[in-house]
Amino acid sequence: MSFIPKNIEQTIEEFSKLPGIGQKSAERLTFYLLRKKTSHVQQFGEIVSKLKDNLKYCKSCQNLGTEDLCAICRNPERDASTVCVVEEMLDLVALEKANDFKGHYHVLHGIISPVDGVGPDELKIVELINRVKEGTAKELIFALNPSIEGEATAAYITRALVGTNIKTTRLARGIPIGGDLEYADSQTLKKAFEGRVEY
Amino acid sequence: MSFIPKNIEQTIEEFSKLPGIGQKSAERLTFYLLRKKTSHVQQFGEIVSKLKDNLKYCKSCQNLGTEDLCAICRNPERDASTVCVVEEMLDLVALEKANDFKGHYHVLHGIISPVDGVGPDELKIVELINRVKEGTAKELIFALNPSIEGEATAAYITRALVGTNIKTTRLARGIPIGGDLEYADSQTLKKAFEGRVEY
Repeated sequence: MSFIPKNIEQTIEEFSKLPGIGQKSAERLTFYLLRKKTSHVQQFGEIVSKLKDNLKYCKSCQNLGTEDLCAICRNPERDASTVCVVEEMLDLVALEKANDFKGHYHVLHGIISPVDGVGPDELKIVELINRVKEGTAKELIFALNPSIEGEATAAYITRALVGTNIKTTRLARGIPIGGDLEYADSQTLKKAFEGRVEY
Repeated sequence: MSFIPKNIEQTIEEFSKLPGIGQKSAERLTFYLLRKKTSHVQQFGEIVSKLKDNLKYCKSCQNLGTEDLCAICRNPERDASTVCVVEEMLDLVALEKANDFKGHYHVLHGIISPVDGVGPDELKIVELINRVKEGTAKELIFALNPSIEGEATAAYITRALVGTNIKTTRLARGIPIGGDLEYADSQTLKKAFEGRVEY
C-alpha cells in the first residue's frame, strides 16, 4: 500500500508476524501506537530490542536467567529433591503463579514430536538425565501437556532413567476447577472416572 | 514475579498495555520472541522505535505522511472534488483496500464525543471547513461509524458548511455483504428497509 509511510507499513508487518495477530489486529496495534507519545513508542521498541540481552540458560534447570543459576535454583528455600519437568518456560510461569510448588524445575524447551522433526536430541533431555544421575533429585513430576507428544516424551525420559532410584509421577487429569461437566470431552471424563478419589 | 529476568518481565508488561492483549497473550508473544533469533528481535524493536520518525500530518487532508502533502493528495490521478471524511487513518486504510474510491480524504483524528470530553476543537474540523471554503471540493462523503457520535460529527460539520455550495452525503447502511439476515440487528434491518432500492 504505497500511500502508507514506510515506517507504518513495516511496523504493521512486524506485528502481523506475531502468533495470533492477523493483518487487521496488526494495523490496529500500529495505529494505537501512532496515537501515543513518541517517547512511549521508543521505550516500547527499546525494551523489545533488549529482550534477549544478557539472558542465558540456567546450568541446572535450563530456565532462562541472567546468571549461571536461575533465581529458582539459587533460592535455598526451594526443595531440590523434587523436579518438575515442563515443556517451556511459559509452563513454568503458569505453575509458579499457582504458587504452590516449592521444588525445582527442568525446562525441556520443546517436546518430542516426530511429525515436526523434533527428536530427543533437540531437547534438554540429556541435561535432565545427567542431572538426575548426578544430583539430589528424588522425584520427577512430569507437567507436560496431556497429548501424544507429552506422553511420548515422559515415556522416553522414564525409559532412559531405568536403573536409577528416581520416582516419576505426572500431574492428575480430570475435570478442571470451574469447568462444566456437560462440556467436558469424553477423554477427560474417562480419565476423571479412572482417577476418582475417595470422598 | 522475581524469578523472571527483568528484560522478559518488562517486555510482557509493554505488550500487555496494547489494546486487546491481556496478560496471557503478552506472555505468549514475549516467549515467542524469546525463541526467535536475537537479530530478529532487535529488528522488531528498532522498527517499532522508529515508527513515529519523520511523520507529519498532510497539510491538506491531515493524513500521516512523510512530506507536506501525503501520497494520496499528491497523486494527480485522484479527484480532488470528492472528499471522503473519516474518523481515523485506520478507516482510510480500510477504504483504500476496497480500492474503489478515487477521490481525496480528510482525517478528523477522532469524533465528537462529549462523554469522552472530545469536542470539535480537538479534531481537524476547522481544517476541513477551511479546506472546503477555499478549495475545489464539490462533495463531502461522510464515512463515519454509524453511531451517535458519528451522526453528531456529521451534523456539526454540515451545519458549519451552511451557505457553501458543497453537497454532503454519507455511506449507505444496510445488510453487509456475506451477512446473515437472521443475525442482523433490528436497527440494521430497519435502515435496510428504509434504504431499499429498486430491483
